[in-house]
Order: sequence, then C-alpha cells, then structure tokens
Amino acid sequence: MNQILIKNAYIISMNQEKQVFTNGDILIEDDKIKEIGRVNVEIVGADAEIVDATGKIIMPGLINTHVHLSQQLGRGIADDVDLLTWLRERIWPYESNLTLEDSYISSLACSVELIKSGVTTFAEAGGQEVDGMGRAVTEAGLRAMLTRSTMDCGEGIPKKWQETTEECLEKQIELYERWHNKADGRIKSWFGLRTIFNNTDQLIIKTKELADKYGVGIHMHVAEIEGEVLFAKETKGATTVQHLNNLGVLDKNFLAVHTVWLSDQEVDLFKQHNVKVSHNPGAAMKVVLGFAKVPEMLAKGIPVSIGTDGAPSNNRMDMMGEMYLTSLIHKGRTLDPKAVPAEQVLEMATLNGAKSVLLEDEIGSLEVGKKADLIILNPKSIGSIPMHDPVANIVYAMQSSNVESSMCNGKWLMKERKVLTINEEDIVKEAEQRAKDVIKRAGIILPERFKMI
Amino acid sequence: MNQILIKNAYIISMNQEKQVFTNGDILIEDDKIKEIGRVNVEIVGADAEIVDATGKIIMPGLINTHVHLSQQLGRGIADDVDLLTWLRERIWPYESNLTLEDSYISSLACSVELIKSGVTTFAEAGGQEVDGMGRAVTEAGLRAMLTRSTMDCGEGIPKKWQETTEECLEKQIELYERWHNKADGRIKSWFGLRTIFNNTDQLIIKTKELADKYGVGIHMHVAEIEGEVLFAKETKGATTVQHLNNLGVLDKNFLAVHTVWLSDQEVDLFKQHNVKVSHNPGAAMKVVLGFAKVPEMLAKGIPVSIGTDGAPSNNRMDMMGEMYLTSLIHKGRTLDPKAVPAEQVLEMATLNGAKSVLLEDEIGSLEVGKKADLIILNPKSIGSIPMHDPVANIVYAMQSSNVESSMCNGKWLMKERKVLTINEEDIVKEAEQRAKDVIKRAGIILPERFKMI
Repeated sequence: MNQILIKNAYIISMNQEKQVFTNGDILIEDDKIKEIGRVNVEIVGADAEIVDATGKIIMPGLINTHVHLSQQLGRGIADDVDLLTWLRERIWPYESNLTLEDSYISSLACSVELIKSGVTTFAEAGGQEVDGMGRAVTEAGLRAMLTRSTMDCGEGIPKKWQETTEECLEKQIELYERWHNKADGRIKSWFGLRTIFNNTDQLIIKTKELADKYGVGIHMHVAEIEGEVLFAKETKGATTVQHLNNLGVLDKNFLAVHTVWLSDQEVDLFKQHNVKVSHNPGAAMKVVLGFAKVPEMLAKGIPVSIGTDGAPSNNRMDMMGEMYLTSLIHKGRTLDPKAVPAEQVLEMATLNGAKSVLLEDEIGSLEVGKKADLIILNPKSIGSIPMHDPVANIVYAMQSSNVESSMCNGKWLMKERKVLTINEEDIVKEAEQRAKDVIKRAGIILPERFKMI
Repeated sequence: MNQILIKNAYIISMNQEKQVFTNGDILIEDDKIKEIGRVNVEIVGADAEIVDATGKIIMPGLINTHVHLSQQLGRGIADDVDLLTWLRERIWPYESNLTLEDSYISSLACSVELIKSGVTTFAEAGGQEVDGMGRAVTEAGLRAMLTRSTMDCGEGIPKKWQETTEECLEKQIELYERWHNKADGRIKSWFGLRTIFNNTDQLIIKTKELADKYGVGIHMHVAEIEGEVLFAKETKGATTVQHLNNLGVLDKNFLAVHTVWLSDQEVDLFKQHNVKVSHNPGAAMKVVLGFAKVPEMLAKGIPVSIGTDGAPSNNRMDMMGEMYLTSLIHKGRTLDPKAVPAEQVLEMATLNGAKSVLLEDEIGSLEVGKKADLIILNPKSIGSIPMHDPVANIVYAMQSSNVESSMCNGKWLMKERKVLTINEEDIVKEAEQRAKDVIKRAGIILPERFKMI
C-alpha cells in the first residue's frame, strides 16, 4: 500500500456540490483518492509521503479531448496557409513520412508539453503509428484514449495509407487487443473516423458496431469547415451530422470534434443522443474553422470539453492557454461578458472532459474512490498575483508555468516543474533532430518570411 | 564608454530590408547599437561584456501600446461581469482608492510582468498617480509614455476625481515638466483623454494644442463599445471618430486605442490623418468590445500596434500571448488563414509600436544608431521545438517563458529570466498585501463561484 498525503491546500474538488476546501488535505492510496477535505491522521501510515501544499491550489488534472501526438514534430510546418495546402502539401506528406520511432519520440515530446500544462488525461485524435504512441504513453504515465487515423476513401491520400474498409477495421481490432487497458489500465483503445471526406458509410457503420461491442468510444472530426457540410450534402444528400444520425452513429460513445458548422437542429440531435463534443478554440481560429456554438451547446446540457488539437494547428499544446481562449472566444463572438464564465471553463476541462472520454466514474473530480489524477498550481507568480478570485485567476491569468506538480493514477508525473517520467532535455534534442529528418524526407520546403543573410 | 557584444545569434533586425542575420553579432555602446551583423572586432574594447547567444534569437524589444500600470493590483476584481458593473462597481472604486504608494507598487509589479514577457517600451493608458508610475519606471529601466487619466465631465465619476477642464490641463502640464525626458530620456510625458463619455470638447481641443506645443502624443480610448458611438451621436451629433475629426484632433500624434466600432470611412479618416492605433485583442474579447478591423487597417497602411490593456481586462500583461491572439482573432473573424500572418504580427509589436509611440527614429528595429532595446529568446523549450519556421514559432508557439534576457537603453533589465532592476520576490509579496488592502478600502466584495468550505 502506497500512501501520499498532500496537506493545507486550496482544493477545488469539482465534486457534485462543487465544494472548495479552502484549507484541505487529500490522501492518496495507491491509484485512488482515499480521503479528501479533513484527513483522519490515524489512517495515514508512517511511511506515507507527506507534501505540504500551503498556498497552493489542487484541482483535478486537466483533460485534453483532442490532440495529435504524432504531429508534434510538425509544429510550424503549416502556418498562415490555406487549408488545402495545410493538409495535402504539409500535414499528409509529414505524417506519411513518420516512422514508428518518430511517432514514439513525437508522442513523448507531446506528452512532456501536456504534462507541463496540467494535462493528466487526453484523447488522441488518430495517428498512424499507434504502437509508438502506446509505448510513449506507457512511459509518460498519462491516461490516454488512443485512436488510429482511419481512412478508406477520398482524394489525395498518400499511397502508403490506402486501405480497404476491412483492413481499417482489422487493424483497429488488433490495436484494441494489444493496447486496451494496458499500462495499469491507463490506456484505452478507441475507434477512429478521420472525417466524412475519408470514411465510407460501411466503415462508419461497422466502426459503431465494434465500438459498442468493445465498450469504447469513437473519435471523429465533425463539421470542421463549411466545405465539409457542402460535400456531405452533395455526396450523401445530408449534412455531416444528419448523415451520421441517419447511419445511427450519434450516441453516448461518440466524441465529435470541432463541430463548428452545426445548425440548431443538429445541436438538438447531439443533445438527444448524448453525443460528446470537443471544442478546440485555438485551432478553430488559427486554421480558420470558425466559432462553434459552445455557449448554446452548454446551455442545452451537452458536455462540451476542451482540446488543443495538434501542434501544426494551434500551435500550443497548452491546456492552461486553451481554457483562457475558450472563455475569450465566446465572449468576443456573443458580446456577452458572462458567456462561458471561469467556473464553466473549469467544468469543461475536468468534468466534461471525463464525460467525453467515457470515464466520468473514475476521473474529472477529486472524490473518494476516484483515481488520483490531480495537479498542484502555484499561484505566486508575477503574472497571477494578486488572487482576488481564485477560480477566475486559474482561467484568465495563470499559465502552464503555474502548474507546479502533477499526478496521474496516484503516481507523480511532475514535481516542481521537473517531469519525472521522461528526460525532457534528451527528448528536446531527439525531437529536434527527427523533426528535421522527417521534413527533409517529406520534401517540405517552407517559404522564407524575411530576408535571410 | 560601455560596450556589450552579443555573438552568434539569429538576429531578426526588423530593419528596412527586414534582414535576418542567421548567425550575427550585435555591438552595443552605451545606450545605442554600434554595429550589427558582422562586428569588426577591432572596435570592441578589452573590457566589453561578451555574451554568447548561440542557438538564441535576438529581436527588438516588444512595444506594448496600451497598459494600465496602476490596475495591476486589481487583476481579478471584475471577471465575467457586464461593462457597467466592471467600470462603476469594480474599477473606479478600486482606482479611486489607490494611494500614491499603491500606484508605485502596482507599477513595479506590472513592470516585472512586462519585462518577463519581452516588453522594453510601453504606453501607459492613463492612471491617477503618475508620480508613482514615474518612480517605478525609473527603477524598472523600461521606456514609457506616461499619461494621466483625464476626465472633466460625465456620470458616476468618484467625487475625489471631479476636476475642471483647467485643472485637468494644469496637472498634466505639471507632470510634463516633472517627468518628460527623465530617467535618461526613457520617460516621455503624454497627454491623456479617457473617453468621449468623460471629456468635454474644450478639454479635447486644448489637449491637442498642448500636445502639439510640447511635441508629444495623446492617448485616448476610442470607439470601444457600440454604446459609445451611440452616445456620441446623441450628444455630439456625430460618431466618436467623426467628432474627433471635427475638433481637429485626429493627427499623427494621436494614439487611438481599441477602435472596434469604426466604419470604413472612419478607417479612411485615420489613414488620411496618420492616426496611430493600439489593438488589444485579449481585452477586446474578454470585456466584449468586439473585433476591430485590423487586417483592413493594416492593408491601408495604418500603423496598428498591439497592447495588453490592464490586468482587470485581459488578465495577462503578456505581449508574447497578445501577439498570438492578434493573429488568431482575425483569422477566426475573417476565415482567412493568411490574415495577419506571423511576420506582420512581429511588425505590429515592434515597428508599428515604435510609430505609435512616436519613437520610430529611435526604437522598433535593430539598426546602427538606434537605441539598444532588445530581447533574447531561447527557443529550446518543449513548447517551442521543433523550429521549422522561426518567425512563426515566435508568434504561435513561444510564450513569455521563452524570453530569456532583455535590454533597454543599453542596460540589462533581465538575464536568464531573472529581473535585475526590481526584486521580484519582494514585489510579489508587497503587491499581494496592498491589493487586499485596496479592495477592502474600496468595499469590493466578489461573489463566490463555488461552495467554500
């Protein structure tokens, strides 16, 4: 039995009553929370690790519901370009030139950035080399829903990726068997659907059958751009969301990402079928998807969570920054200063994140019996003092540098800003070298912005 | 003669040809740049300080063209509230309860945050206790255009602030005499106009006369909210901008801040009169001003610069973050992925900033004879590697934590993230204590967001 007692903290529990213990303790036993609030000292063993968190804030680890682990080495390869250039001249050439080992290193680098911005759980959007990701997540200590990029039709797909529907499904079943519930149960193996452009109806229907059979989720980019909705109307006779509904896929285990181009009726369909939504405000602005109807979805009770998207889309894998953007973008769009207030942003990044990854019984709040996934924030920095309104301060002022320590499944991932599970310095070097090599292999040459001498 | 030679850096000069010296040196002599690119070693003295910047990026110090120094202690007092509550129940009670010493400490705290995010020059938006600000800026080592909050009419102004037009003008002349060109010339004393709501025509006209007489600028919040334009139409028979034009104030020494609610004709008026604009994207979203026509203004050649606004509006006094937001907000609004590309953002934060503060002959680029105002960025962090496209990387990936060192007027303000001019730890403590006291004196009580135990 392994015990950790963290004392004297300002604990934002996110439990059902949304209790904040202004001077609280939390006792962790193995991978779970044993007590919270006031801890009975009699149950704390002599060999328990004791951490004094006076002046610090403890909250549930952040949940990033859309991230591309294997795009980390491609940060900066596709800035300020139109979407077709972005996808076909930069991202696909990059991704299709990644080796298994590149994917592993990319995933480790991404994991370090995630840990340093307070993430303890994430949902992978769908990459190619899932074995590389699985290995990295196992080492990083994070909790992850892994997904393979799955495409069985569409234009411009690199040759090495062209697969039949059956191959797509078989490979995912293999991955499920290899990775599901591995790494002390931290890894879940999900099913992926890249986009309506690249998925046949047969694949979509079969994917839903398999996800139900295995009791896991489906991760899909949905209604990202206006052109997608037009494409769906032309080729399927219905919008993306209507078509997915017609195929019977909209359900509680369906995680719809971006969902920018939705009608009010489609929002209602999401609510009706208990669909989960991942909102990615940074990417929505930077790669010009547009402004999703997030306050409207939240008002209807749809569990909208937050994701960073991948490094060539955002370009910050920084959930602290993404929380800030989430509130800002909708205030700006609606001109309602109360739109998506700070407490709702925290709920999106924790409770709604847990619902989105189908783990609301295990994570998303700090409660007895739940997994010990938490972060410790140090608010004493020049950019975050004074702290008149702590919850607002987390969302509007604190940055990833305020995330001091992090724990997932009862194990420390970071202490005092030092990542314990991965050698950060080595990964920075290795990622830089591999990134250069991949870009070279892929033949990607970026135009110069200024006059180089 | 004091020499500093920084060697082997990737120097983004922002000079007329926009040259980047991929492996360059820069020699500083006293407060100015003596040589850049390749430095002739024969002119470097034996006692010169030599800094090896291999692997680092050097660029001009960032210029923040709208910041409220004395609002720093009020960060978090007005989040997620409507604008009238924001102003009359939170900001004015806070500001009118600040002492001279509070303003000094607030200014020091703000200065530390500015330095740590790469700012070397800023324009103060207009606070009450300018002597406190001047003292702080002198110590901090920054370059600043100081302005007094100036109001001679309007509803709801706290009693202690009520002044006649003549008093407003006299106090500013006094401040000009006391502060202009002080601190080795780093301080300029500007004239302030708070808003059209709070300034009579007489004050506006006299302010223009004085600014011209003294050869300094005028700093004013302009067309911030739709209600302001409606107010101007009702009371002046013209929109804010039209009215200012009628009064003859629009000119090359006029810095118009926010400028969200502008018609195309008003944009043309700005261009015609060479008006300078400060764009504050974070505040524009958070306190719901709306989306200014920035790409359109830039296309017409209006020198739009970037500001953070004050800590209760943003809430990050972080120019690195503000550069990122500047590009994102307009991509999102226009759905043009090429809107405000990274190189244009850098220009806004440097060259256009220099034009906005009327110092384009002295700062904004790294050129022989200009002031030595520069920052050194360290790109080797997990959040900013790899670096396929350095200029884009600065805007989209790097954060304030990448700003490693900073110099203003040839003197180091920060080295290796340690601020040299101010004791950061002491200021954090003092600012926290004073912030509590001010809020208490002002009688500001914030509602609780969660259930406190």
